[in-house]
Order: sequence, then C-alpha cells, then structure tokens
Amino acid sequence: VKVAILGVGLIGGSIGLAARRRAGARVCGYDPNPKACAVALDLGAIDEQASDIGAAVAGAQAVFASAPVGALAESVRQALALAGADCVVSDVGSTKLALQGAREDPRFVGGHPLAGAETAGVENAREDLFEGATWYLTPAPSTNRVLYGRIEGLIELLGARPAEIEADAHDRLMASVSHLPHVLANVLVAQAAEAFEREGCPPTVGPSLRDTIRVAGANTAVWTDIYLANRDALIEAVERAVNGLEDMRAALLRADAGALAAWNERARAARKQLLGGDTPSADAAP
Amino acid sequence: VKVAILGVGLIGGSIGLAARRRAGARVCGYDPNPKACAVALDLGAIDEQASDIGAAVAGAQAVFASAPVGALAESVRQALALAGADCVVSDVGSTKLALQGAREDPRFVGGHPLAGAETAGVENAREDLFEGATWYLTPAPSTNRVLYGRIEGLIELLGARPAEIEADAHDRLMASVSHLPHVLANVLVAQAAEAFEREGCPPTVGPSLRDTIRVAGANTAVWTDIYLANRDALIEAVERAVNGLEDMRAALLRADAGALAAWNERARAARKQLLGGDTPSADAAP
Repeated sequence: VKVAILGVGLIGGSIGLAARRRAGARVCGYDPNPKACAVALDLGAIDEQASDIGAAVAGAQAVFASAPVGALAESVRQALALAGADCVVSDVGSTKLALQGAREDPRFVGGHPLAGAETAGVENAREDLFEGATWYLTPAPSTNRVLYGRIEGLIELLGARPAEIEADAHDRLMASVSHLPHVLANVLVAQAAEAFEREGCPPTVGPSLRDTIRVAGANTAVWTDIYLANRDALIEAVERAVNGLEDMRAALLRADAGALAAWNERARAARKQLLGGDTPSADAAP
Repeated sequence: VKVAILGVGLIGGSIGLAARRRAGARVCGYDPNPKACAVALDLGAIDEQASDIGAAVAGAQAVFASAPVGALAESVRQALALAGADCVVSDVGSTKLALQGAREDPRFVGGHPLAGAETAGVENAREDLFEGATWYLTPAPSTNRVLYGRIEGLIELLGARPAEIEADAHDRLMASVSHLPHVLANVLVAQAAEAFEREGCPPTVGPSLRDTIRVAGANTAVWTDIYLANRDALIEAVERAVNGLEDMRAALLRADAGALAAWNERARAARKQLLGGDTPSADAAP
C-alpha cells in the first residue's frame, strides 16, 4: 500500500514513521520545504520524496494532508484533483467545517488526531505519537464507506482510536475543549502580567497560575488561523464562558456563599468526570 | 526562641519542621483536632502540644496562625489577646485585608507564603516547602518594625524570600494571579464537560485542556471562604477577564486577523515575562 503525506512536520512525519513500521506501507512525502523531506528520509519517516503533490499522490491508496490549517484546504483540493478514483484523502486539521468544499467528494474523510508534542517539526516525529490517542473522523453522507473503512483501519494500525463524529459537532466540541482553553490562558496571562506591573511587584508565579497559563501565546500564525477557521463555534463558546463568569460574579456581588459552593461543586464533579480523581489543594493550602 | 503554630496542617507543620531544624526554635503547636498535633509530634514538626491557644502562645516570641481562611481572623484575634507584648503574630492566609481588625495592633504582621503541595495535611509537611518561595508580608503603618524584622528573619531561615507589600495591593494581586486562575478553571471544566455531553461524545482530554483545568474544583469550603474574603478585588478581576473575552470575541465577530494576532502576541510576550521561554506547540501541531 502506498501512503502519501502532504506536509512533513511533527504530525506528518509521525504518520510516516508509524505507517512504514506498523502498517508496512510505502510512504511518499511532499513538503514545500525540501529540507523537511530530507530530514524525514534520514529518519525513516518516508521512503521517497515527491517534487509536487501530483507525484506524491500518484498511485497512492491513502493521502494524509498534514499542512498547517491555513494551507490545508488548498492541499486537500489539489490532492483530490490529482489522486486516483480509489484513493482515500484525509487531513489532520483541528477544524473540520473549514474543509466543507472537499466534503462532497466521496473520497474525502476529514480527520483530526488529538495528539501533539511540546516541540514541532519532523525532527521530533515519533512512531508512537498516536498510541492510544483519539483520532476524530468526520465522514459526510456522500463519503464512500469502503474508503472510510480503509482510513479507519490505517489509523488503528498507527495506534490511535478512530472516533466518528459529525463535522459540525466536532468543531463545536473543539471550540469548548481545545480552542477556549487557549483563549482563557491568553486572557489570564495578560491580566496577570498587568497586575504585577500595576501593583509594582516582581512577578512570582505560583503553581495554579503556572498550569493555567502554560498554553498561552501559542504560535500566532497557526492559532490565528485556527480561531478564524472555527469562528462561529468559538464565538458561541466565548459567550458561554462570559456567561459563566457573569454568574459567578453575580454570586460574589450577592456574597452568596451557597451559590459559590454549588458552583464550585459542579466544577469539582466535572473535573472528576474529565480527569478522574479529586483536585489537589495547590495554592489552597492555607 | 519559642515559636507557636496555631493550626497544624501542611503549612503549619512545614513551618514547624523548618523552624525546629533550620532556626533552632522550640515549637509549640495547637490544633482543634488533637490528632493533627499527635502526628506533628511524631514527625518532629513540633516539640510540644498545647491544649489551647493561650498555652501555645505563652512565652512565645513568634506566632504563626495557620488555620483555614474561615477560622483565621478568630485565631489571630485570640493570639493577639493572649500573647505577650514582645511577641510578633503573623498568619499565612491568602487574603490580607480580611484581617483588618488585627492590623492596628503593632505586634501583627500579615503574611502569605506562595507555597503549597498537591496533598494537604500535616502528614505531608516538608522542611523544604518554603525553599525559594516568595513569602508576602503586609505590615501596617502601626506595625512595630523590630517585630517585623524578627518575623522577616525567621521566614528567611525557613528558606523563603520575604517580600513586603501593602495588604490591599496584595489582595488585588492575588485576585488576578491566584484566585482568577481557579475561577477560569472552574468555568472551563464545567463548559467542557457540558460540551462532551451535548455532542454525545465520550470525554477525551487533550494536553491543553488537562493543564488548564487542573486546579478546577478545589476544596469547596476553603475556596468559598477565599472568594468571599477577597470579594471586592475578585469582582474587579472577573470584570477584567470578561472585558478581555469580549474584546477577543469582538475581533472574531469582525474576522479581524490582525487584531487576533496582536492579541495573541501580547499573551505570548506576557507568558515569556512570567514563565520565560516560548510556548510549546501543545495541541497546535496540525
């Protein structure tokens, strides 16, 4: 089986490594930056380097478009135009409705692996990056289910757990569970830095603040594209967060200990559901 | 030198351990729960157990009130009523204006060590808990500076870095850098759990969400007290956060890539200032 990787970075490179070693695939890579392909060849993440998308997808049974979000739609469009009738084309972007144009093609299956690492770039690619990770797949009604089964099986061989979900449900979900955490971290870090400055106090970062702002200020080009690609769902998620804050502020204004306690208990239950276990006391010690 | 610890938990016990081993102090502990004192004696966190606050502070040169926030004001009041004229009384609460009543006593110096641990209770006390930690001190104009110097020196012996700050500045600062992170984590975790449920999707928690909600749902009794003790400053901090979110949402509504990029760059600079280094890519990989 021939697999094409369009965009050989951390994710594309890791797909290549796992596809070669775990699925016995022959992997052909294309990247606008030829250096990335040279590194990928060295690392064994690809078997061969294509000079353009047409050469990469020629004869392939599966294509993973793994370019940055801003370049993804064009990469998928070209792959569908150039790939054969029996080739499944997928992508790894963190929003799925943005690829609406491709969704009418029966060969296209949107995808999104919930995996990443502290460090980008093909040089950090790992065969086990997807081990145990959820990998969302968002087929459309027109999707060819045989091709869907092929990409699903391939993803299982990479070590991930495929999870089928509607594209719009996926994007709404990501707005709340991935994009909003970045938005809140950005708001908090700016406010904390201003507070230290306003009070004339050298910054000292306790454990709660440290964790909560860790993902703040992520790569600006990548995240501006993500925020805009998921604009409608994110606007709604931000509105919900504002409402949540306004409710808490109203309880504070009323000095309503019962409402604050109930609000905290809801958070405690939700945390237990998502992370398992109780909250450590962190800076709550005194 | 005799040091009294009123409230022998993680913080009180750690002060006791460090005061005995690093400052050569004789430490007398009082706790409404006698079991805590028994454990503290076993662990070497105190030399002796007092049956009441009066016995604990009798003959002491320094007192640390380390009860939970809700019980702190009464503990400090009793300590000041029963301690000698040459005894400095401090506390470890995370808000300082709440102890306003004590602030007119020249023997009182409010304090707040920025230290904690994943696990509460005297059994988790550590001699090095305060090593390198900022320990805010909030003297009032009426504070006796000789007594201030004594508590400052003692705190240095415990391994911490004393930092003098006005009580109201301290509380405003904590609202933004300690209490708000908990509020945002609570709002986010509830919203994320609702989103998984609404989309009919089993929860899968990626690295960004995991970090950002770690401190959510902290001990309800403790945190309800903290939120109420710092009510005015926290109301203002929540308002600022709402404004920050509204600005971001307005940029999304306008699809204003430039404003979103500038907003993210400000967060990036603030993060670098507070944590040092750039943001890892986290779930931004694709």
